[in-house]
Amino acid sequence: PLKVWSNIAHTASKAKELGQDDPRRIIHSCKVGLAITIVSLFYYFNPLYDGFGVSAMWAVLTVVVVFEFSVGATLGKGVNRAIATLVAGSLGVAAHHLAVLPGETAEPFVIGITVFLVASVFTFARFFPKLKARYDYGLVIFILTFCLISVSGYRDDEVIDLAHKRMSTIFIGGATSIFVCIFIYPAWAGDDLHKQLATNMEKLATFLQGFGDEFFKTSDSTIVEDRRASLQAYKSVLNSKGTEETLANFAKWEPRHGRFRYRHPWDQYLKVGAHIRQCAYSIEALNGYLNSDNQIPYEIREKVQQHCKKMSTECSLALKELALSIRTMTRSSAADAHVLNAKNAAKSLKSSLKTGLWVNAELLQIIPALTVASLLVEVVTCSVNLSEAVHELAT
Amino acid sequence: PLKVWSNIAHTASKAKELGQDDPRRIIHSCKVGLAITIVSLFYYFNPLYDGFGVSAMWAVLTVVVVFEFSVGATLGKGVNRAIATLVAGSLGVAAHHLAVLPGETAEPFVIGITVFLVASVFTFARFFPKLKARYDYGLVIFILTFCLISVSGYRDDEVIDLAHKRMSTIFIGGATSIFVCIFIYPAWAGDDLHKQLATNMEKLATFLQGFGDEFFKTSDSTIVEDRRASLQAYKSVLNSKGTEETLANFAKWEPRHGRFRYRHPWDQYLKVGAHIRQCAYSIEALNGYLNSDNQIPYEIREKVQQHCKKMSTECSLALKELALSIRTMTRSSAADAHVLNAKNAAKSLKSSLKTGLWVNAELLQIIPALTVASLLVEVVTCSVNLSEAVHELAT
Repeated sequence: PLKVWSNIAHTASKAKELGQDDPRRIIHSCKVGLAITIVSLFYYFNPLYDGFGVSAMWAVLTVVVVFEFSVGATLGKGVNRAIATLVAGSLGVAAHHLAVLPGETAEPFVIGITVFLVASVFTFARFFPKLKARYDYGLVIFILTFCLISVSGYRDDEVIDLAHKRMSTIFIGGATSIFVCIFIYPAWAGDDLHKQLATNMEKLATFLQGFGDEFFKTSDSTIVEDRRASLQAYKSVLNSKGTEETLANFAKWEPRHGRFRYRHPWDQYLKVGAHIRQCAYSIEALNGYLNSDNQIPYEIREKVQQHCKKMSTECSLALKELALSIRTMTRSSAADAHVLNAKNAAKSLKSSLKTGLWVNAELLQIIPALTVASLLVEVVTCSVNLSEAVHELAT
Repeated sequence: PLKVWSNIAHTASKAKELGQDDPRRIIHSCKVGLAITIVSLFYYFNPLYDGFGVSAMWAVLTVVVVFEFSVGATLGKGVNRAIATLVAGSLGVAAHHLAVLPGETAEPFVIGITVFLVASVFTFARFFPKLKARYDYGLVIFILTFCLISVSGYRDDEVIDLAHKRMSTIFIGGATSIFVCIFIYPAWAGDDLHKQLATNMEKLATFLQGFGDEFFKTSDSTIVEDRRASLQAYKSVLNSKGTEETLANFAKWEPRHGRFRYRHPWDQYLKVGAHIRQCAYSIEALNGYLNSDNQIPYEIREKVQQHCKKMSTECSLALKELALSIRTMTRSSAADAHVLNAKNAAKSLKSSLKTGLWVNAELLQIIPALTVASLLVEVVTCSVNLSEAVHELAT
């Protein structure tokens, strides 16, 4: 019993954490509860129940299946479901008519073959990447509805009556979901994608801000573990591709809201995301040199430290400005200045390395510093590309 | 009309491509068609139709929704659906009984509140990452069934009869799906995960194999664009995390098959995958130096070329051996030898850089070669970790 209690306490604290992480999760749960309750009571009270009969349960089913966290996902599923049901329903009735033509003995064969072909072809269609991304759910519902209608052994008028009722109830369920989803504290996938790009840039900026000091620290400075950990936030950016693509697909379903038009250039967001990841890969390589305990010879330190710190800091500032300009959706020239500074620092580094000759230390000792310098130049290049992509987004 | 034809031709060629890429897609489509046809004919022929009535359509619905590409996904969904329906059905009947107790006027309120609470709480439960990964579908079906049963205004014996029929039909649909999925050309998620790890390692190996020659090419050697392109195959490894996690979740549902036990250490596969990605990040940094046109001074070339080529080649061979040992599921010592060679090459590089003093060239010119050397040492470290993880998997 003690163990049970500690399990419950653990779950409760975990739930609290999830709720605090993103309060919209709690709101979403209540919204789902609300939508289902509304539809259930529709179903429960007699007038509607008499009208729709058993079909009314399709309304509850639709709400449970269609209601998703973001508006885009809900709209996408709702529209997919509605259109697929309508089209498949009509075709199913047609198939049912055709199957009766050749006579009663052939009917099961005709139906069996039709169902087999439709199910196979549409299942295969789900493998097309473009269909998969936007219409996967619609294809599933198409197969489902077509098979149900064409197989059902009803008489003609009953089939049409059934199809009609099902459409109405699915419409009620879908409309309730979409209404609750949009008008009560909506969670927009587009907003999320937008914010995620900014947050990811800020994570990279945090790393670059701390990197210079951390790498060139003199041996007597104490290592603050906490600070190290905060630098590692960028790791999540490395695997951000899947989330971004999903969010962009949802966002494409969303109507105009807040500062976003209906045909907001979501694909451009994906390009910006790709540039951010490219930066993150270079930063991942840089991170490998943070943990090694380097003794940087004095001469090389003098040659590169200042420029490297400058590159790192300026890139960090540029990324922060870019993140801010994404957040506020303004075109900022402050980022350009920082990018320019970073470029100049890279140039000065190069000329500083060009002039001096190196005579006094082992090559092995200077490698880490030179590698870091070289990788930072890569980061500067990435930042330039990123800044261009963000500007393109702003226009 | 011409445009329509070209569209059709384009779609057909695309479909052929998809089919050739992975013929299991065609098999899967036919399997889905077969399973639905079997269940439909169950439904169509009168004896069963009389017994189950309208509930029989739940069998078709279950097949369409549960049948997935891999055995693991299908089993996972089927088990989730069956258990969730059973539990939610019982609780729904209980809730229905309780709701009647306080009298007829209060009934809608009691039902409304119960439905709201259950739907909200279980929707929130879907946010727990562990539940999301394995039981997401079960939670949806739980909400669905509970709401349908507790809301339906049937008399008691009808509710139980309905629940019984629905369970039977869902069982028929689920069993048909699982049977067809497992016994006709099964596609195992575990196999896919297993092969993906090996393929990913081979992609990295291909890069490392070509890298040495490509980077240290003398200026008169012609650049072969085709070869360049083949080196870039590793890029897909960078974003492999999502796929691997999904496959591992599916694989956990799969029974013993081929060379895999029921509790195969799938989590260890994820660790190996993480090490592979770590390698890929270093390789991404290396790749940046392939495209720049470097003139490597003779002295530094002499110092590092041999060791770098050795490190790159030996890592490549080690990765290939590791991929082979994963494919054949044997513990191979050949990889160890190559890893050792690579480590030794890294050591020789270090000592070669330690002894010589550098007097004759600009620092700027030697940076690319030194950076590449340093990154290759990182790759060697990754390979060592990877090899350990693979060996751990083999035990």
